[in-house]
Amino acid sequence: MQQPRFTLISHALCPYVQRAAIVLREKGIDFERIDIDLARKPDWFLQVSPLGKTPVLLADGVPVFESAVICEYLEDVAATPPLHPRDALERARHRGWMEFGSSVLNAIAAFYNAADESRLQACADDIRHKMEQVEVQLATRVDDGPYFAGAVFGMVDAVFGPVFRYFDVLEASGDFGFFRATPQVQVWRQALAERVSVQAAAHPHYAALLRGFLRARPGALARRFQ
Amino acid sequence: MQQPRFTLISHALCPYVQRAAIVLREKGIDFERIDIDLARKPDWFLQVSPLGKTPVLLADGVPVFESAVICEYLEDVAATPPLHPRDALERARHRGWMEFGSSVLNAIAAFYNAADESRLQACADDIRHKMEQVEVQLATRVDDGPYFAGAVFGMVDAVFGPVFRYFDVLEASGDFGFFRATPQVQVWRQALAERVSVQAAAHPHYAALLRGFLRARPGALARRFQ
Repeated sequence: MQQPRFTLISHALCPYVQRAAIVLREKGIDFERIDIDLARKPDWFLQVSPLGKTPVLLADGVPVFESAVICEYLEDVAATPPLHPRDALERARHRGWMEFGSSVLNAIAAFYNAADESRLQACADDIRHKMEQVEVQLATRVDDGPYFAGAVFGMVDAVFGPVFRYFDVLEASGDFGFFRATPQVQVWRQALAERVSVQAAAHPHYAALLRGFLRARPGALARRFQ
Repeated sequence: MQQPRFTLISHALCPYVQRAAIVLREKGIDFERIDIDLARKPDWFLQVSPLGKTPVLLADGVPVFESAVICEYLEDVAATPPLHPRDALERARHRGWMEFGSSVLNAIAAFYNAADESRLQACADDIRHKMEQVEVQLATRVDDGPYFAGAVFGMVDAVFGPVFRYFDVLEASGDFGFFRATPQVQVWRQALAERVSVQAAAHPHYAALLRGFLRARPGALARRFQ
């Protein structure tokens, strides 16, 4: 069967878009990327994105929306290399930790939107706690990693690549000790930063764009970036 | 292969739990249900639920967390009857509308948490708009329904059963016209209300419990329930 022509509708800073871009690259699938401005959503975009969010993947023009759905779809239509475990229960565990990755993204958003320093510290605590939960998971691996499931890169890695990328910029704002108690998470983070698919998924000027975005927030973090 | 012993960890009012309960029943799987108090989460619960949320499904004691993940897992281990379409692109469309169902649940939460009448009306408008988006999808069916995909009950139906259940209670608070322009959604809602699996997924005193919950909210809707 001939593969569809894929277009990934994106936003320059969207971490969910990056998941899809990483999976596409890991599977060796060519695609066109179109960045839109989420502050001024074009009408054609709202036609293909019922939630008004990125990413949307067009497969020969047919929209697939929501990042986890796109990842599953790509796993269904491009089986090689597999990015999910074969065992159903293990696959469910991985899908659960993909969702956990989304909850870390929500915690990061709460952090950069925190109104004052006290709230900022509370949000940092929350992120640190989540990293400790991840550390416990990594400790259950039968080998040394460096990826979520061990030596082989998978779907959970595609989710956490964009999660960890935030911290390269966030850490410049102060010592929050996000990874203070999580040595295995640190190793994982480093391995993902070195992965070509993870590097290629971000906008070429990602760090500068993110800093600009953070500076424009109304809260406590923005003041640290002035 | 012998099927695992399943325990569904629940909260009496949680719509995400109901999804899992509906899927279990549709697939003819016996399970035990344990309700917990989300305001006082037991320690054993936090051990199996990294996000601190219901539902969690225990399969021979191994936790599967996050409702969409549980649904996919059950589809993987109990293939009959299938609740997902066979075609990958169509399955992705269904998974996308499951996520859309979650966004309706978020809109309902915003509605019952709205601080004042003006915000309450804005939230009602949002819900109404989402129902109109669903109506457009239903109009693409090749048959008359009554379910999301037509004559056969599927995963999207398991998601919207608990969504529609809210309105049986919410509509007593005033005429918000949630379904004013959506005749096909109304037919779907009625069909789901009559489905045994959907009925059985709710707590026996669901309506009374929900009214009690809504009355205890601090905002505009609660005042309409006094």
